[in-house]
Amino acid sequence: MTFQYKNVFINDTYTIVGPYEYQGPLGSYFDAHKKDFYVKQKTFEDAESKLLIDSVKGVLKKVKKTISDVDLFISGDLMNQIISSNYAASQLGIPYLGIYSACASSVEGLIIASNMIEKQQIKNCICSVSSHNNSAEKQFRYPVEYGGPKPKTTTFTTTGGASAFLSSEKTNIKIESATIGRVNDFGITDAYHMGAVMAPACADTLYRHLQDLGRDISYYDMVYSGDLGAYGKDILKEYMKKTYNIELKNYEDSATMIFDLKRQPVNAGGSGPACLPLVTYGYLFHQMKEKQLKKILIIATGALMSATAVNQKKTIPSIAHAISLEVFE
Amino acid sequence: MTFQYKNVFINDTYTIVGPYEYQGPLGSYFDAHKKDFYVKQKTFEDAESKLLIDSVKGVLKKVKKTISDVDLFISGDLMNQIISSNYAASQLGIPYLGIYSACASSVEGLIIASNMIEKQQIKNCICSVSSHNNSAEKQFRYPVEYGGPKPKTTTFTTTGGASAFLSSEKTNIKIESATIGRVNDFGITDAYHMGAVMAPACADTLYRHLQDLGRDISYYDMVYSGDLGAYGKDILKEYMKKTYNIELKNYEDSATMIFDLKRQPVNAGGSGPACLPLVTYGYLFHQMKEKQLKKILIIATGALMSATAVNQKKTIPSIAHAISLEVFE
Repeated sequence: MTFQYKNVFINDTYTIVGPYEYQGPLGSYFDAHKKDFYVKQKTFEDAESKLLIDSVKGVLKKVKKTISDVDLFISGDLMNQIISSNYAASQLGIPYLGIYSACASSVEGLIIASNMIEKQQIKNCICSVSSHNNSAEKQFRYPVEYGGPKPKTTTFTTTGGASAFLSSEKTNIKIESATIGRVNDFGITDAYHMGAVMAPACADTLYRHLQDLGRDISYYDMVYSGDLGAYGKDILKEYMKKTYNIELKNYEDSATMIFDLKRQPVNAGGSGPACLPLVTYGYLFHQMKEKQLKKILIIATGALMSATAVNQKKTIPSIAHAISLEVFE
Repeated sequence: MTFQYKNVFINDTYTIVGPYEYQGPLGSYFDAHKKDFYVKQKTFEDAESKLLIDSVKGVLKKVKKTISDVDLFISGDLMNQIISSNYAASQLGIPYLGIYSACASSVEGLIIASNMIEKQQIKNCICSVSSHNNSAEKQFRYPVEYGGPKPKTTTFTTTGGASAFLSSEKTNIKIESATIGRVNDFGITDAYHMGAVMAPACADTLYRHLQDLGRDISYYDMVYSGDLGAYGKDILKEYMKKTYNIELKNYEDSATMIFDLKRQPVNAGGSGPACLPLVTYGYLFHQMKEKQLKKILIIATGALMSATAVNQKKTIPSIAHAISLEVFE
């Protein structure tokens, strides 16, 4: 399902990250960073919610608005029952839609908001996501304190909060179109190889986006997925070539951008709902403002995994949602 | 945030329930029922997803459409990472938005779909939810097999799947308006008294809905919440009277409608994302088609609880979303 927009703009964004992301190659592009994983909270779960709240307050300050100016807050995260988002929404008091599509949640939120703003059903919206390495590891696999070794295909959940303020007020980043993805399931049960799980969903959404709009991949200066990781990225390239005969040259994955895979202990790269929006709102928007990039396609990919389902030996389905961003002049 | 619609209709619905719901006072109003909790699946989780899929296929049959006719599937449930919905979406292959606002998910889905249909961004949408007594009890409290006693304020998660097919094609049930709620938190930590947790969110959304549209409560033939339960219902009435000076006379709660509280072992009544839509799509739509009811307001309430947060002694926030339905003549 693909939409095109004429009146939707990202007025500003705010990104706040943990120590690993700050030490990564894009560290200087984030608005704020924290030195530890607790962020002065008692639990990792509270720390994640705090990062989310800080990112909302941060973007409000940048657009010079207050909470009462905001029509809608859309947020999602990886925690069971999306509690990071729920507790953030509770503190903020803005009308709230909770969403879940794992690491594709950021773009799901942007699409719901864009559709409402395009038709003036709301005047503005804050779209947020968060993730936290320790809260996610604890919930989906093992507490990081156990120090268990991991396969090289594993990604490292990013720690951070990312918020975007959307309205019909014209600024230099325009949301131009979007595609809602379908759930794919290629029968993979390996919870340590999310890139393999998500690559087919990414391919499906990318192909349908191009088909629906009658576009060639070269329409975009760059296509960014997030977060397939070092191995998933290659799977996607091969899959796109073999299945659709599309050569992915103008393509990169946020998992391999946010961290230095040679220097940092992150295996196949970054992941988590925050990974792609941190890279997009931090680094890519900077490149767009500098006119280094003018038209980009962002494909957020989510592995719809649950610890319960993994223990029941179920396959892991995946989804991907895409949104195209343009420099507005 | 309140919206009004002119072009959104619920063309048909499908409800499928477990044994307790079928044995309840509204049993004859559901489209289908299952005799046990496994529904020929290996796990309760798979059983829940099966009920969800059956409800989607059921409504498709009733509106004489196939999966390829459907633009969008919006679904949510109580399972961690909404796996019931994800596995359903995986089998269906319709573009999919996963949502979460606990037992308020049904109305969240209807609102997102209505906004898109109203402005012709999509031509139709299936909105679904599911819940399952045994999968929910296991995840949020203890496996039912333990047979632990419970306080009287506890509700009994309904087992079922409920789907609605929405489009701009005129039929006799019109979605007239809707209000997206805010998260409320009154500091309650008792995971066995959801009615107390959710009543303030219900009151807030009801009040703002009436304020935003300049309506008196008497505008509606009936207001239905779901699912505050026997105790929460009284809390809501008292709270509305004391806080807003609104007397709730034309009001009922789905938790106390779906079960016979005197005869069935359900404590304070039914709950789960399926409870309110089962009552609405099953019984209330029948009443509307018979012209016994012409204008109703449906307020879905959700306790944004997670086992992790409860164990960390966090308070339980809540949310409520409202939608008004009218007989279209």
